[in-house]
Amino acid sequence: MDAFMQAAFDEAQLGLKEGGIPIGSVIVHGGKIIGRGHNRRVQEGSATKHGEMDALENAGRQPASVYRDSVLYTTLSPCAMCSGAILLYGIRKVIIGEHESFMGEEELLRSRGVQIEVLDNPECTHMMKDFIASKPELWNEDIGE
Amino acid sequence: MDAFMQAAFDEAQLGLKEGGIPIGSVIVHGGKIIGRGHNRRVQEGSATKHGEMDALENAGRQPASVYRDSVLYTTLSPCAMCSGAILLYGIRKVIIGEHESFMGEEELLRSRGVQIEVLDNPECTHMMKDFIASKPELWNEDIGE
Repeated sequence: MDAFMQAAFDEAQLGLKEGGIPIGSVIVHGGKIIGRGHNRRVQEGSATKHGEMDALENAGRQPASVYRDSVLYTTLSPCAMCSGAILLYGIRKVIIGEHESFMGEEELLRSRGVQIEVLDNPECTHMMKDFIASKPELWNEDIGE
Repeated sequence: MDAFMQAAFDEAQLGLKEGGIPIGSVIVHGGKIIGRGHNRRVQEGSATKHGEMDALENAGRQPASVYRDSVLYTTLSPCAMCSGAILLYGIRKVIIGEHESFMGEEELLRSRGVQIEVLDNPECTHMMKDFIASKPELWNEDIGE
């Protein structure tokens, strides 16, 4: 794993240790992490703090030019909300740990010109599959059937 | 204005009084407001708390069945991030105060089966146009050219 995906993975692991859903993200600009975060659904009862959103929030208010030249790293394929945030801010490159346990809105992102790279990283996949198997009710709580 | 759009408008006005961007939203389930919010970009330096996101956050963790039967009221056409959140949570009806000062992702929402109603409410339109005219740099800060 490269250093930035490792940082996203570490965020996910931090979330897991807190009893939360293990999804983590970092935003990289000019070779430096400007925001990092992880899913806080359990920890804060939050409906909006997914890993990507938490990283965006922690990056704070940035000018459009910074977002345009940033790369978002996320351990799991981004859902509709996080993909929408990527489109809103004009982030042009997204690197995804895996999309085997959940397929997000990659097609929508591609159709809008976002460059997507999927690493199919086995550590990311195992982390998510283990979590879903151990807490299916939490995973299915909000968007489940 | 009906009572729910009025509540969204009141949220927007509250944001304006706080020195913020005047966009407000409420989420209605079973004829009752279960979440309300307004844009907090200025107040909290937040990149993710748009009116709709703040209302979702304040509604707290809800089961999928509640979102599916909820109606989102928002004073302004929802951006890509907020539209993504609407899709994520499967909210099936969105009532929009106006889309003259900003056209959000209404087409995407419609293409995914979300029912959209645009009120073209003059109070909502004037509120937004006045704000953009008075603070264009704030309006253009993050997604501007």
